Amino acid sequence: MNFLEERILRDGTVRPGGVLKVDGFLNHLVDVGLVNRIGAEFKKRFAGVEITKILTVESGGIAVAVIVANCFNVPVLYAKKTRAVNMDDDVLTADAYSYTHQTECRLFVSKRFIVPEDKVLIIDDFLANGEASLALASMVESAGAEVAGIGIVIEKGMQKGGGLIKKAGYRLESLAIIDGMDPETGEIRFREQ
Amino acid sequence: MNFLEERILRDGTVRPGGVLKVDGFLNHLVDVGLVNRIGAEFKKRFAGVEITKILTVESGGIAVAVIVANCFNVPVLYAKKTRAVNMDDDVLTADAYSYTHQTECRLFVSKRFIVPEDKVLIIDDFLANGEASLALASMVESAGAEVAGIGIVIEKGMQKGGGLIKKAGYRLESLAIIDGMDPETGEIRFREQ
Repeated sequence: MNFLEERILRDGTVRPGGVLKVDGFLNHLVDVGLVNRIGAEFKKRFAGVEITKILTVESGGIAVAVIVANCFNVPVLYAKKTRAVNMDDDVLTADAYSYTHQTECRLFVSKRFIVPEDKVLIIDDFLANGEASLALASMVESAGAEVAGIGIVIEKGMQKGGGLIKKAGYRLESLAIIDGMDPETGEIRFREQ
Repeated sequence: MNFLEERILRDGTVRPGGVLKVDGFLNHLVDVGLVNRIGAEFKKRFAGVEITKILTVESGGIAVAVIVANCFNVPVLYAKKTRAVNMDDDVLTADAYSYTHQTECRLFVSKRFIVPEDKVLIIDDFLANGEASLALASMVESAGAEVAGIGIVIEKGMQKGGGLIKKAGYRLESLAIIDGMDPETGEIRFREQ
């Protein structure tokens, strides 16, 4: 069991409906020490892969992606879910369903921030049905750039995202993969990696 | 002129309506090297101040706040603007007007993540009318904790936020204060600090 799985067992809670709450260390209150270990682990897993930019989506992914970018010493870009008054006119867009908010949403990235020379590592806190990651990947490719890989902190192995990403040909690294959760007992089962 | 003011002059753009675009290095594409210097500068300015937690608001503030938390070696908490299905029932709330999105919004923080012993440093990317910072401060105090200070990357000195924060008795550190912008010439005037 790795450091992240241990932390999920200790401080995560299972809720009905396939919800895993990790808001005490990952996506509301953020334990930056833990996130540094997550960043170092991605750096190790993607060692030797050329990466020029980290891409994530607001706002759950930002904390992890910023620390990962710090580890890789590259800039981080985050896709927005609303179009602010000060956003460029020339944007890349893609649609994704948010599992957490249970709504369809459109993602925006300013076109000038992904260039054809970019090798982009996509980072997100959760992977469920893969909609956000695949939407980010489609934006990278529509800019003529390359997806260097997809790094996920917690993958819900019972859902289809992991399969869809691999089927699309992307390299996927998930630091913890959950194969089962029981809201009654609180049990969490991880996939052996 | 400090490193941040130099960067704003080089890569920021002035738009009509008092809008300063810094999306090429601060709040869309994020230059993590620059943000590390911002974190180090806050660490210097708040040297000797006891700080147990960083608080910010999604999503513009998260990138800077995570790096600041890394510099101070404390956790970072970010207030949410929507209430996700997996959020605690027991929350602190406050209302703020978003200058960027030009809408009123409600901020949420899970009550259990601010304890009376906390000394909280509030961090945000922009300060305009002060609504977000003051809303965060009110949540800290309603939890019985203490606001250790407010750290802002870019303060719009023409607007009332800085004055309101100081009048309320909070220590404010803004790394760049803009006293005037001209969308026609692109000129940006900084306040001498």
